[in-house]
Amino acid sequence: MKACGLIVEYNPFHNGHVYHVRQSRDASNADCLIAVMSGSFLQRGEPAIIDKFHRTKAALLEGVDIVLELPYLYAVQSSDLFAEGAVRTLHESGVSSICFGSESGNTQHFMEGYDVFKQNEPFYRELLQDYLKQGIAFPEASRLAYQKIGLTTEEMDLSQPNNILGFSYVQTIMDAHLPITPLAIKRKKSNYHDEEITGPIASATSIRSKLLAEHDISGDVAATMPDATIRQLHEYKRQAGCWHAWEGYFHFIHYRVMTMTTEELAAIHGVDEGLEYRIKKTAQGVTSFYEWMQRIKTKRYTWTRLQRMFSHILTNTTKTDMYQLKNKTTVPYVRLLGMTRNGQTYLNAQKKEMNVPLVSKLSHHMNPLLCIEEKASNAYYSMLPADKREKLRKQELQPPIMIN
Amino acid sequence: MKACGLIVEYNPFHNGHVYHVRQSRDASNADCLIAVMSGSFLQRGEPAIIDKFHRTKAALLEGVDIVLELPYLYAVQSSDLFAEGAVRTLHESGVSSICFGSESGNTQHFMEGYDVFKQNEPFYRELLQDYLKQGIAFPEASRLAYQKIGLTTEEMDLSQPNNILGFSYVQTIMDAHLPITPLAIKRKKSNYHDEEITGPIASATSIRSKLLAEHDISGDVAATMPDATIRQLHEYKRQAGCWHAWEGYFHFIHYRVMTMTTEELAAIHGVDEGLEYRIKKTAQGVTSFYEWMQRIKTKRYTWTRLQRMFSHILTNTTKTDMYQLKNKTTVPYVRLLGMTRNGQTYLNAQKKEMNVPLVSKLSHHMNPLLCIEEKASNAYYSMLPADKREKLRKQELQPPIMIN
Repeated sequence: MKACGLIVEYNPFHNGHVYHVRQSRDASNADCLIAVMSGSFLQRGEPAIIDKFHRTKAALLEGVDIVLELPYLYAVQSSDLFAEGAVRTLHESGVSSICFGSESGNTQHFMEGYDVFKQNEPFYRELLQDYLKQGIAFPEASRLAYQKIGLTTEEMDLSQPNNILGFSYVQTIMDAHLPITPLAIKRKKSNYHDEEITGPIASATSIRSKLLAEHDISGDVAATMPDATIRQLHEYKRQAGCWHAWEGYFHFIHYRVMTMTTEELAAIHGVDEGLEYRIKKTAQGVTSFYEWMQRIKTKRYTWTRLQRMFSHILTNTTKTDMYQLKNKTTVPYVRLLGMTRNGQTYLNAQKKEMNVPLVSKLSHHMNPLLCIEEKASNAYYSMLPADKREKLRKQELQPPIMIN
Repeated sequence: MKACGLIVEYNPFHNGHVYHVRQSRDASNADCLIAVMSGSFLQRGEPAIIDKFHRTKAALLEGVDIVLELPYLYAVQSSDLFAEGAVRTLHESGVSSICFGSESGNTQHFMEGYDVFKQNEPFYRELLQDYLKQGIAFPEASRLAYQKIGLTTEEMDLSQPNNILGFSYVQTIMDAHLPITPLAIKRKKSNYHDEEITGPIASATSIRSKLLAEHDISGDVAATMPDATIRQLHEYKRQAGCWHAWEGYFHFIHYRVMTMTTEELAAIHGVDEGLEYRIKKTAQGVTSFYEWMQRIKTKRYTWTRLQRMFSHILTNTTKTDMYQLKNKTTVPYVRLLGMTRNGQTYLNAQKKEMNVPLVSKLSHHMNPLLCIEEKASNAYYSMLPADKREKLRKQELQPPIMIN
C-alpha cells in the first residue's frame, strides 16, 4: 500500500481541508492518507478550539485514513522544528509522498527555490542575523533575507505563510535525503490570516473567531465546514461545556506567573532575552489575556511568538525539556490518535517496518517525551470543570479512535 | 512605654479574642498591645477567611495597638518554627512580656514544665524518633513522648493544642534567654477544635465553618464576634465577592500538580518521603480539594500537615526557600500591618532601638524573604475575579492601616 502524508492542525477541520484531502489523494495516487496533526496546542501558540480526539474524528470521517499526533515540543514551535517533527513522523510511518498547500501549487518552483536557497544559505543566515540584531521580528527579518536571495518572486514567494511552511517541509525532506516526494497542492482562495468569512471556503482563523464570538455555529460558519466537523464541535461542547480559547486559561497563567520567581520564569522555553522581567512587570494589574499580550507586545516579538511562550508557561515546558530534542535524528515515537479500517490495514503491514514505537495511549512510562505530552494535555483540560475535565482527559488512556 | 505581645491568627477576630486582649492588658499592665498575626495562610495550612488587612482592622478596633505580620515561612509551620518566628518578631519590636492562652492560666506550671522538659530533653527526642519511626503521626508521637516524661499531667498537659503552642513560646523565650516575661492567660471555655457554636464564646473553627457553610453571618454566629469583625467580614465580602476557603483554590493546585514533574513536586517544602508520587497518583480523577485530602490522608500524615503541604504547593514555596531561615538568629524584618495612634507613639520611640528593618509595604527589593510573602499574597488573591484581585492585592503597597 502506498501512503501520502499531510501536515495539518484541523482547528477545526473545514471545507478548505476537505478540498486539500481530495486533491492530495488525487495528486499522490496513494491508498492511504496519513495526517500528522498538532495536539492540544497549535503552532501559533493557541489552545485548539476542541480537543485532538474530536478533531481526529472529523478528519477520519472526511477522508483521512490515519491521524498521528505531532508531539508538543515540535508542534508549538517556529516552522523549522514544526516541519522537522512533522516530516519525521510521516517518514517513520512510511509515506512515499507529502502533500502541502501552497499559493501556486507548483512543486517544481519549490524544488528550484530549494536549490537557490542552498546556494545562498550562508548569505541568507548572515542577513537574517543582521536583521534580528536590528530588533526586527523573525518573520520580517526572514522575509527580508529571502528577498535579498531572490525567494520572494511570484514563482516562489517566501513572504506567504503557507509557502514558508511548505518550503520548510521540502527543506527537511531534501536536507535529510528522505525517500519522500513533496507535492505542492494549489490552495483554494482564502488567505491564511483572513478575518472575515465570505463564502464556503474560509480560513481557520475566521471560522474560529466567529465560533468563539458567538459561542455557537451560525449559518455562515456552518457553510464553511463539513457536517462531521459541525457534529464534533457540538459534541465537544456538550461534553466540555465550552470551546477552548486563551481567555479561559488567563487565571491559570496569571496565578502561575504571580507565584514564580524571575529565575523560574527564565527557565521556561521561549522566555528569553530578559522577557521574564517584562512578563512579571506586565502581570501587575492585568485583567485579561488579550490585555496582557498587548502590554508585552513590542516590535521585536510577534504575537505568535509570545503566544507560544505563554503556552510553554502554561504547560510548564522548560528549556531542560527542550534538551530532549538535542541530537535526535528522528522523532522518539509515533502517536496514533485514530484510523479508519483502511488506515488500520496499512498500519498492520507497516508496523513491522517502523524504527520507533507506535504509541496508542498516553503512558509516561514509555518515553520521557510523553511526560511533556501529558503536561500539555493536563494543561489543556485544566480550564474545564473538574468532572468534565476528568472525563475528557481519560480519552488519553483509551485505544485509538476507530472509524469504519 | 511598656509593650506586651500576643501571638494570634484572628481568623476571624471573635469574642474569645476580645476576652484574651482584655486579660492580657490587665495581666501585663502594658501601655501597648502588639499582636503578631499569620498573614494570608495560617498555621493549620489554610487560607485565612478574609485577608490580613481586614483582620488587622478588626483587631485594632477591638483593643490591639499594633498588628505585625508573621512571615509565611514561619506561619505555615509546626509549632516550633511558628513560635520561633512569632517570639522573635515580638522581641524585635521590644515587648517585655508575651501573653498566651492556656487551659489553666498558670504561668508557673509552664516554667516548671520547661525545667522538666530540659532535664529530660534527650530522652524525649529519642522517644519521639522511635514513635515517628513506627509510623505514628507527629502530634500523637509527641504526646506519647511528653507523657513518658511526665508532661501530660493535669497541671501541665501537653496533649492540649493550646498548651503546646504556649509551651513553644516559653521554650523559645527561655532557650534564647530573651528578656521577655511569659504570661499564661486562662482561656474562656471553648475547645480549640470545637465544631459547634454553643454560645457567645466559640472556637474560630466553628465560626469559620458556619460562615463558609452559610455564606453569610447568621444570628448565632454574629453573637460570637464583636461588631468590628462582623463589619470587616461584610466589607471584605463586598470587595472580594466571597470569603476564602481551600475549595476556591482547588483548580489552581490541581492544575499546578498536573503540570509538574514528580521531581519538581519533591522540590516543594513539605513534600517529603515520596509524597510526590502519592500527590500525583491521587490527583487523577479527583474533583474537589476535600476529596483529594481524603485520598492522600494516612495515619502517618495529619490533616494539618497535608494542608500545609498544599499551601506550599499553591504558593510555590520550595525547600530552597526554606534555606533562608537557616542559621538565622532572628527574623529578617518586622512587617507592620496596622496600628492605632497609641501604637504609633510606641513605634516612633521604639524604631531606633530595632535591630531589623520595620517594613511597612511589600517591596521585594527590601529583603529576599519578602519575595516569598509576595508569592503567598499573590496565591491568596488568585481565586478572585481579576478586577477584584488586583484591587485587593494593591493593599500590599499601601502604608499601614491607621486607626484613631
